[in-house]
Amino acid sequence: MTELAAAIAVVGAALAAAFGNQAVITKTIESMTRQPELSKDLKATMFVGIALIEAMPIFAVLVALILVFVK
Amino acid sequence: MTELAAAIAVVGAALAAAFGNQAVITKTIESMTRQPELSKDLKATMFVGIALIEAMPIFAVLVALILVFVK
Amino acid sequence: MTELAAAIAVVGAALAAAFGNQAVITKTIESMTRQPELSKDLKATMFVGIALIEAMPIFAVLVALILVFVK
Amino acid sequence: MTELAAAIAVVGAALAAAFGNQAVITKTIESMTRQPELSKDLKATMFVGIALIEAMPIFAVLVALILVFVK
Amino acid sequence: MTELAAAIAVVGAALAAAFGNQAVITKTIESMTRQPELSKDLKATMFVGIALIEAMPIFAVLVALILVFVK
Amino acid sequence: MTELAAAIAVVGAALAAAFGNQAVITKTIESMTRQPELSKDLKATMFVGIALIEAMPIFAVLVALILVFVK
Amino acid sequence: MTELAAAIAVVGAALAAAFGNQAVITKTIESMTRQPELSKDLKATMFVGIALIEAMPIFAVLVALILVFVK
Amino acid sequence: MTELAAAIAVVGAALAAAFGNQAVITKTIESMTRQPELSKDLKATMFVGIALIEAMPIFAVLVALILVFVK
Amino acid sequence: MTELAAAIAVVGAALAAAFGNQAVITKTIESMTRQPELSKDLKATMFVGIALIEAMPIFAVLVALILVFVK
Amino acid sequence: MTELAAAIAVVGAALAAAFGNQAVITKTIESMTRQPELSKDLKATMFVGIALIEAMPIFAVLVALILVFVK
Amino acid sequence: MTELAAAIAVVGAALAAAFGNQAVITKTIESMTRQPELSKDLKATMFVGIALIEAMPIFAVLVALILVFVK
Amino acid sequence: MTELAAAIAVVGAALAAAFGNQAVITKTIESMTRQPELSKDLKATMFVGIALIEAMPIFAVLVALILVFVK
Amino acid sequence: MTELAAAIAVVGAALAAAFGNQAVITKTIESMTRQPELSKDLKATMFVGIALIEAMPIFAVLVALILVFVK
Amino acid sequence: MTELAAAIAVVGAALAAAFGNQAVITKTIESMTRQPELSKDLKATMFVGIALIEAMPIFAVLVALILVFVK
Repeated sequence: MTELAAAIAVVGAALAAAFGNQAVITKTIESMTRQPELSKDLKATMFVGIALIEAMPIFAVLVALILVFVK
Repeated sequence: MTELAAAIAVVGAALAAAFGNQAVITKTIESMTRQPELSKDLKATMFVGIALIEAMPIFAVLVALILVFVK
Repeated sequence: MTELAAAIAVVGAALAAAFGNQAVITKTIESMTRQPELSKDLKATMFVGIALIEAMPIFAVLVALILVFVK
Repeated sequence: MTELAAAIAVVGAALAAAFGNQAVITKTIESMTRQPELSKDLKATMFVGIALIEAMPIFAVLVALILVFVK
Repeated sequence: MTELAAAIAVVGAALAAAFGNQAVITKTIESMTRQPELSKDLKATMFVGIALIEAMPIFAVLVALILVFVK
Repeated sequence: MTELAAAIAVVGAALAAAFGNQAVITKTIESMTRQPELSKDLKATMFVGIALIEAMPIFAVLVALILVFVK
Repeated sequence: MTELAAAIAVVGAALAAAFGNQAVITKTIESMTRQPELSKDLKATMFVGIALIEAMPIFAVLVALILVFVK
Repeated sequence: MTELAAAIAVVGAALAAAFGNQAVITKTIESMTRQPELSKDLKATMFVGIALIEAMPIFAVLVALILVFVK
Repeated sequence: MTELAAAIAVVGAALAAAFGNQAVITKTIESMTRQPELSKDLKATMFVGIALIEAMPIFAVLVALILVFVK
Repeated sequence: MTELAAAIAVVGAALAAAFGNQAVITKTIESMTRQPELSKDLKATMFVGIALIEAMPIFAVLVALILVFVK
Repeated sequence: MTELAAAIAVVGAALAAAFGNQAVITKTIESMTRQPELSKDLKATMFVGIALIEAMPIFAVLVALILVFVK
Repeated sequence: MTELAAAIAVVGAALAAAFGNQAVITKTIESMTRQPELSKDLKATMFVGIALIEAMPIFAVLVALILVFVK
Repeated sequence: MTELAAAIAVVGAALAAAFGNQAVITKTIESMTRQPELSKDLKATMFVGIALIEAMPIFAVLVALILVFVK
Repeated sequence: MTELAAAIAVVGAALAAAFGNQAVITKTIESMTRQPELSKDLKATMFVGIALIEAMPIFAVLVALILVFVK
């Protein structure tokens, strides 16, 4: 059961990060195309947003690695 | 069963945070593109919103870590 | 089974809060962009709305913490 | 099984309340943006609506707390 | 099994009531914004509609309470 | 199993009634807003429609109550 | 198992009738609003349609009642 | 298992008939509103269509009744 | 298991036939409303289409009846 | 298990054929309404398309009949 | 289990082929209606496309037939 | 279990190939209709795309055949 | 269980690759139709994109082949 | 169970990466078509985005490979 739990945790992290990042990056590219002069400000917001989104999946990966290596 | 519960808790936290943050960040980027002069006010609201959204997933991560390390 | 129940409760709380808050915050940002002069009134309604939405998930977190620590 | 039932009840309450409240609050903010002079009447209807929506989830929380503390 | 049945009944009641009420209240707020002079008639129809929608979930809560307290 | 069956029956009744009534009431409010002079005729059709929709859920509640009290 | 079968049958009847009736009534109200002079013809078609839709759920209720009272 | 099979058969018949009839009746009402002079031809096609749609659910009800009464 | 298989087969036949027929009949009624002078040709195509759609569900009903009466 | 497999096979054939045929016939009727002078060419393509779509479900029916009669 | 596997394989083949072919044929008919002079080129592409789509389901039917006749 | 695994693998291959190819072919036909003079370039891209899409399902068929014939 | 795991892995690879590639190729064909003079640049981006998308499914196929041949 | 966990982990990685990359690449191609002069900046953002998206699935593949080779 420990292996299955680790797999679920790491897959959930991958899906959550992919879903969240993809939405932010996609919207940034779309906005850059519409207003190229805002490009820098948009990219800065994008990196802050990605950092905030990836904070939680990192914990999921952490739990998965603990389950695989320690338990 | 404890490992599976921890995995579910931490994955749920990751998905909830990713879904909530992504929506707020995406909408902020979109609004910044439309009204660049409101940029500061929008970003402030975004950070408050993200803090409010991440309050609950933090508890889920807490429960997961307790289940992994203590029980 | 107690651990699984705690995980489900806290994940449900995280998902419900993230879903509810995200919708309210997103709509507030959108409305602020359209009518910046209403900004204060919209933010006040947003905070009241978030408080009302988070009332129930708090109970779910409470039940989860009781299941983890007491039972 | 009692713990799982309590978790399901309280999660259902959280999801139902979040879904219902979010829709009403979102629509109120949208309407306030379109017709700011109706602001007071809309907010009054919003509070009545939220009270009516939260009547049922309160019972779900009640059942969950009884299942956790009494049984 | 009795506890699970009670939880399902009360959660179903909460979800049904939240879904039904939210739709009616949302539409009422939207219509009030478009035709403020009909405000009273719309609110009256809203309260009748909510009463009719909540008639069935009340039975579900009743069954849940009987399952929790009597059986 | 009898309790679970009763819970499913009464929840199904609540969901079906809420879904059906909500659609009819919502559409009535929308139509009243567009043509206020038809208000009476629309409300009469609404009440007939709700009666016809609630005929079946009443049987579901009946079966649930029989399962709870008699069996 | 007999109780569960009865509950499923009666819930299915309620859902099918609610879904079918709601669609017909909603469309009738919408059409009455657009062409009030056709009101009578539309209502007649509505009642015929509802009778045809409710023919099958009646059998489902019948089977449920037989399962509850006879078997 | 026989009771469950009968319930599934009769519920499937109810859902299929409700879904099919509702679509045909709804579209007929909509078309009558747009072209009232075609009213008779449309209603004739509607009745033929409903007969063709209900041919299969009748077999499902038949199988359900055989399962309830004979087996 | 034989009863369940028969129920699944006949329900699948009912759902498939209802879904297929409903789409064809609905589109025919819609097209008749737009071009009443093509009415005959469209109805002929409709009947051919329904015959082609019902060819497969008939086999499903056949299998269900064999499972109920012979096995 | 053989009966269940036969039921699944024949139901899948019915659903696949109904879904595929319905889409082709619906689109043909729609195109005939827009360009009645292409009527013949469209119908020929429709019959070829239906033959190509029904090739696979025929195998599913074949497998189902073998499972019912031979095994 | 072998029978169930054969049924799943052949049903999957039927569904995949029906879904793929239906989309290609539907789009071809739609394009023929818009540009009748391209009719031949479009039909040629359609037949190539159907051949490419049916290549995989043929293997699924093959596996199903082997499972039914050989194993 | 080996038979079921083979069936799942080959069905997944059929579904993936049908879904991928259908989208590419459909879009090619649509584009050919809009810009017939690009017909050759579009068809070349289509064949490259189909080859790239079918690379993975081929492995799935391979695994299925190995599971059927070797194991 | 090893066979089932291999089948799931290879099917997931096929579905992921088909879904990802199909979206990229479809969009490329659409863009080529709108701006034929960008054709080369778009195709180059398409091939880079497909390579990046197929990197992960290759690992899934690798795991499947190891599970089939080695374990 | 270890094999199944590895398969789930690697499939989740493939699906997450395919979904995330596909969205970013698709949007980049679309934006390049609309504003070809921004082509370089968009591609740079695309590569950064893909790197950020693939960070998490890499962990999932890592966990899968550890489960296959080490455990």
